[in-house]
Amino acid sequence: MEYTTPQFFHLTEYANQAEGDVIDMVSGDPDWEPPEALRDGMREYADSHVDDLQYAPSDGLPALREEIAERRNVDPGQVIVTNGAGEANYLAMARALERDVGDEVIMADPVYTYYPGKTQMLGGTERFVPVGPDDVLHPDDVREAASEDTACIVVNTPKNPTGGVLDADAMEGLVRVAEDYDAILVSDETYDHFDYSGTFSSALSVDSDHRIVSSSFSKSMAVTGVRVGYAVIPEDLVDLAHSRHMLTNVATNRQGQYAVLKALRETDPDYYEANRELLRERIDAFTDALERAGAEYIDPDGAFYVMAKFDGFPGTMENSKRLIDETGVAGMPGEAFGEARADWHRFAIVTPRAIEAAERLAEYFG
Amino acid sequence: MEYTTPQFFHLTEYANQAEGDVIDMVSGDPDWEPPEALRDGMREYADSHVDDLQYAPSDGLPALREEIAERRNVDPGQVIVTNGAGEANYLAMARALERDVGDEVIMADPVYTYYPGKTQMLGGTERFVPVGPDDVLHPDDVREAASEDTACIVVNTPKNPTGGVLDADAMEGLVRVAEDYDAILVSDETYDHFDYSGTFSSALSVDSDHRIVSSSFSKSMAVTGVRVGYAVIPEDLVDLAHSRHMLTNVATNRQGQYAVLKALRETDPDYYEANRELLRERIDAFTDALERAGAEYIDPDGAFYVMAKFDGFPGTMENSKRLIDETGVAGMPGEAFGEARADWHRFAIVTPRAIEAAERLAEYFG
Repeated sequence: MEYTTPQFFHLTEYANQAEGDVIDMVSGDPDWEPPEALRDGMREYADSHVDDLQYAPSDGLPALREEIAERRNVDPGQVIVTNGAGEANYLAMARALERDVGDEVIMADPVYTYYPGKTQMLGGTERFVPVGPDDVLHPDDVREAASEDTACIVVNTPKNPTGGVLDADAMEGLVRVAEDYDAILVSDETYDHFDYSGTFSSALSVDSDHRIVSSSFSKSMAVTGVRVGYAVIPEDLVDLAHSRHMLTNVATNRQGQYAVLKALRETDPDYYEANRELLRERIDAFTDALERAGAEYIDPDGAFYVMAKFDGFPGTMENSKRLIDETGVAGMPGEAFGEARADWHRFAIVTPRAIEAAERLAEYFG
Repeated sequence: MEYTTPQFFHLTEYANQAEGDVIDMVSGDPDWEPPEALRDGMREYADSHVDDLQYAPSDGLPALREEIAERRNVDPGQVIVTNGAGEANYLAMARALERDVGDEVIMADPVYTYYPGKTQMLGGTERFVPVGPDDVLHPDDVREAASEDTACIVVNTPKNPTGGVLDADAMEGLVRVAEDYDAILVSDETYDHFDYSGTFSSALSVDSDHRIVSSSFSKSMAVTGVRVGYAVIPEDLVDLAHSRHMLTNVATNRQGQYAVLKALRETDPDYYEANRELLRERIDAFTDALERAGAEYIDPDGAFYVMAKFDGFPGTMENSKRLIDETGVAGMPGEAFGEARADWHRFAIVTPRAIEAAERLAEYFG
């Protein structure tokens, strides 16, 4: 057995070991501050009574599940707190596949690179559907690809790597395809706080037993290392997903749950707005510099990645390493995300030096 | 699909909702203090630079992997830091099964209740082998049960729930059975700091490509909620196990890794010895009280559980709930651990009130 393994860590390591000054735009690791209440939560937790240092309930701290449920307008019984959206997606995709109604998982090309590997690991088969010109999956295209073998449709909105955002119509269309083919739509909404288009629509806005939503606090609170996310799972699917969570991880780390709960309660909406504005400005500056250099690029509606294309310089791993060595800019090769954007490169806009990076690229390719 | 799901959380919840004073001996949640350096590590981490709040390398913080490797006398490349021993066991058992050399997992009866469910979730089949009169698996019995279908042998030493400890001969014998049947011995050594017999021998002491060791800091540092454990995996098996770790969890929470690393470096051996001594004394007091009450019990060589048998009161879930309601003592029913000890009850000695609990039991059954 082999799994397709994401190459983020490999390239980050290469960038770290490179000589000279490298601007790291490989991985979506936020460089802005988490909410102060989150750091306060970590400090408070350090002084917890010993009982509170032990296993949280397997499905999550009750107060955190309630806080999430209230914000997402669902029943707390549908919420499982996970080791980031990574585990939430694993639980959701496993849940879809273990119903024994097919082994095919439909996903976008370009794709978030963890989905193919998860599919293989869970015994499923990937079926790629190219995104439309607006960089999102279209329900009609998914319907055309769907069949009796379809167990799962996995989407990501706002979408990594293209920045596309599914609006309410598209989301409803996707849920209907899932229902019609007895599939589960898994909607990974990790970047929901980074919608610049105003059109983002959660899969939770469509009432259905055929959709699971995954999310995390990794990006919205700028703490990818803390590993707290969640899945919202319909009533008739949640028990077995919870069993899998227990049998895989027992429970999610309690110190992270405690800190996230405090931050959820005490953080002002201004915090999220300010970060969204910061990212929007950085993206504009980065794409303006690419524009001046005559490069093709995708202007994202959400998330914080920009894909760019440079003539005669396809998005291969070799070229990504050349960029690190020769320009000091580290990105991800487009081929890592599938065939559709194999000529492209992806840059995570997680550094105040994004403009400098674009200028380096402009000079190199100019 | 159905998985056998451990009932710990269910009974803990029942105990918490019971009227009156309940002594909770359900789950192995330590009630003694973690190392002070661990709390210090949590405090320090709260003030980390934002870069250090992001994903740790997927296989773990390099310094933590090196610290573990040095203590276990292995190469750091063999160490994956996991979300507790729970995830380490999941990775190890999956790794054994995905070699497509059989789907049978041999395990002890009585068994640690997570192993059957993990086996089912991973598409394997459980094969139970009763422990000997000394409460551990005997290599000869395992050899007799082994066949071409055997992919994995999972043991736990010191053993939950019986407290049995595998000595060097037994461990070597088990590794040889694994080698002879092209199986992987998974040795879960979570309780290695709680060996009262002086005979504990790690599977790492037997050089072989056919054994994986899992462990965690949950018990040795009294922080089951912090979710930091590890697996030590032979070179030719480690890459795919690491891929599975990445595809399941991305990485283990960084704040826990940071705190555990600091505690590993700064905690004196006295800390571990004092806790072992504390547990040994509590166990003696508990079993003495059972003795006075005329109950049968197993005197554990390791870990911190005592199994006891009361005439005419088998270890059913119903009887466990009766004990909670009628004596205020919460334990686990023996049937949760398999057939061999279905007449028994397990009590986790994680409370200074263990003697009081034994006295309540003595009075109830007296």
